[in-house]
Amino acid sequence: MAEGFNTRILLAARPDGMPRQTDFRFDTASIPEPGEGQVLIKILYLSLDPYMRGRMSAEKSYAAPVEVGAVMEGGTVGQVIRSRYPGLAEGDLVLSHSGWQTHAVANGAGLRKLDPAAAPPSTALGVLGMPGFTAYAGLLTLGQPKPGETVVVAAASGAVGSVVGQIARIKGARAIGIAGGPEKCAYVHDELGFDAVVDHRAPDFAAQLAAACPAGIDVYFENVGGAVWDAVFPLLNTFARIPVCGLIAQYNLGPAVFDGPDRLPGLMRAILTKSLTLRGFIQREFADQFPAFHAEASRWIAEGRLKYREDIVDGLENAPRAFVDLLNGRNFGKLLIRVAA
Amino acid sequence: MAEGFNTRILLAARPDGMPRQTDFRFDTASIPEPGEGQVLIKILYLSLDPYMRGRMSAEKSYAAPVEVGAVMEGGTVGQVIRSRYPGLAEGDLVLSHSGWQTHAVANGAGLRKLDPAAAPPSTALGVLGMPGFTAYAGLLTLGQPKPGETVVVAAASGAVGSVVGQIARIKGARAIGIAGGPEKCAYVHDELGFDAVVDHRAPDFAAQLAAACPAGIDVYFENVGGAVWDAVFPLLNTFARIPVCGLIAQYNLGPAVFDGPDRLPGLMRAILTKSLTLRGFIQREFADQFPAFHAEASRWIAEGRLKYREDIVDGLENAPRAFVDLLNGRNFGKLLIRVAA
Repeated sequence: MAEGFNTRILLAARPDGMPRQTDFRFDTASIPEPGEGQVLIKILYLSLDPYMRGRMSAEKSYAAPVEVGAVMEGGTVGQVIRSRYPGLAEGDLVLSHSGWQTHAVANGAGLRKLDPAAAPPSTALGVLGMPGFTAYAGLLTLGQPKPGETVVVAAASGAVGSVVGQIARIKGARAIGIAGGPEKCAYVHDELGFDAVVDHRAPDFAAQLAAACPAGIDVYFENVGGAVWDAVFPLLNTFARIPVCGLIAQYNLGPAVFDGPDRLPGLMRAILTKSLTLRGFIQREFADQFPAFHAEASRWIAEGRLKYREDIVDGLENAPRAFVDLLNGRNFGKLLIRVAA
Repeated sequence: MAEGFNTRILLAARPDGMPRQTDFRFDTASIPEPGEGQVLIKILYLSLDPYMRGRMSAEKSYAAPVEVGAVMEGGTVGQVIRSRYPGLAEGDLVLSHSGWQTHAVANGAGLRKLDPAAAPPSTALGVLGMPGFTAYAGLLTLGQPKPGETVVVAAASGAVGSVVGQIARIKGARAIGIAGGPEKCAYVHDELGFDAVVDHRAPDFAAQLAAACPAGIDVYFENVGGAVWDAVFPLLNTFARIPVCGLIAQYNLGPAVFDGPDRLPGLMRAILTKSLTLRGFIQREFADQFPAFHAEASRWIAEGRLKYREDIVDGLENAPRAFVDLLNGRNFGKLLIRVAA
C-alpha cells in the first residue's frame, strides 16, 4: 500500500450471485484532514462479516446499500494519529466504522476508546463486539434457552455461532453445532465444548443432525439458511424459538433461490401447529444491553468459559479474496484483515 | 332426528382437499347413561369452526385427529337432562366439547355452567368463547397493537376476525378488515366500525389493501393464509407482529399448495431485514387469561363497543353442508348449528 496516501477499496459493481474480485476496485486518495471535533485514524484491523454481502446489493434492507463507487463499509479498529477532539489523544486505540481503507477521519464523539490492557483490541470486532453481541442478544432475549433444552446453531466455529453455543452451555442448555469439515468440527466439540457437532458436508447430514437432537430442537439460531434450515425444520419442537440474524446461504444464490416447490405453506403450517416463534433481528435493536454483554462476556473470557478464535489475513489488498472465502465458509474463526501492524 | 335416540355424525372418510358430504356419516345410537360424577346433556348448539378441517386429516398437528368412524368433535352448549354430579342440576345450561351429536355424557367437573341471565348461552361458543378468546389473546399478547398502529385481519365478519378488529380499535389502533362480498364488507365497516374494509374478491384486491394501509401494516392477525397473505406481505412494517391462528385458505388445497415458486426465501429475508415476528398459537396456551377476557369482553358488549353476529343453521342434519359452506366463506357471522330448541 502506498505510504502517505489513503488506499481504499470501493464497490465497483453490484454482484450477481457470489461476488467476484472484479466487483471491487482499488483507489488511492490523499489522507484526509480532521476537522474540528474530529480525529484522523490509521486503521489497524478491518472486520469482514457476512452482512456486507447485503450492503453490496441495491435491494431494500435494514440498512442503505453501499453506493457503487463508494468505499465498502465495515467495522474497524484503528489508532488516532491526529486529534482535534479533546477526548482522544494521538496513540489512542478506537473502534470505528471506517470501512475498507487504510485511513479515515471520524467524529471523535462517535468513537469507542479501547483499553488494550483489558482485551486485545481486535476482540472489539469479534467476541466483544458486534458478532459476540449479536449472539448474546439474539440467544438470550429472543431464543431464551432453558436448562436442558437443545440449542442448534450453524457456522459454529464462526464469530457468531461459536458464542451462541458457548452461552447456551453457560445457561445450562445442550449446544449442538453445525460446521463444515473435520477440522472445524473438532474445534467446535473439543475446544469450544459443544455437546455435539455435525458436519454439514456429510452426505447424511440431516440424519446426523436428527441423531444429535434426540429430544428435538428448542432454539434454532438461524444465521445461514439454505440446506441447514431444511434439516432443522422437521426437528423443531412445539414452542421452539428461531431468532433469525443471517441467511448467508441464500445471499449468493441469485434467482434460483426461488425455484419451487413452495416451502411457505409447510412453514406456516408448522408455525401454527407447533406454536413456533420466528423473529428477525439486528443487534442494534438491543443496544441498551451492550454494557451488560461486555461485562459478562469479558468475565466469561477471563474464566475460560468463552473462547474465541481469530482468522487474521494480512494486508488490505487481500480483503476482496478473503471476503469471498468467508461467503464460501473458507475462513476459520472471526475473519479480520490486518491493515497495519 | 329420531326421538329417544342419540343421533351422531361420524367422520366417514378423510377428505382429499375440500371435504364433501360423503366424508360424513349419520348414525343412531341409544342415549348413553351417565355414570357417577357424570351428567347427560341434551345438545342445544354445536359450534362449527375452521379448525375442524385439521381434525379430519391424519397429519400431525397440535391435537389428535378424529378417527375415521368416530364422532366429529366440536364445542357445544347443552342442557343437563340427568345429573349424577352434585354441582349440576337438571335444567342447567353447560358448555361442553361434546361434538356433532344430539346427546352426550360428560364428567360434571369438566363443564362450565352458563348463566343465561348474563349472556345468551350461544355466545359461550362465539364472542365470549373460544373464537373471541382466540382474538383477544392473540391480538393483545402477541400482536400488541399500539395506538395509531395499523392492524389487518381477514375473515373480518367472522367469529375471530370481527373481535380482532373491534379490540384493535378499543386499544386505539386502526383496524383494516378483509371480507368477501359487499354485504359482509358493509357490515364490517358500518356495524363493527372498522376504519376500512377491503373485498378480497375484488380484482385489484392487493392494490386496494395497499391504499387502505398508507402507513403499512404493524400487526397482521393471520387466520386465513393464501392470497390474503400475498397481498399483506409486501406491506409489513419493520417490527411487524404476525400472530398465526389459522390458515383456512390452505387447508383444502391438497398437494397443489406446494407448487412453486418457493416463497420461503423471500419470507426469511423479510423476517431478517424487517425484524418481523411470526408466532403461531392456540388459545389454550393462554388459558390463565380467560377470566380477564370474559370480564372485559362482557363489559365491552354491554357498552356497545363489541358487537357480534351469529349465523344459526337449524338441525344437526345440516351440519356437514354448513361446514363446507364455512370453509368456502359462505357463512356470515359465527356459525352455529341449533341442534335442539
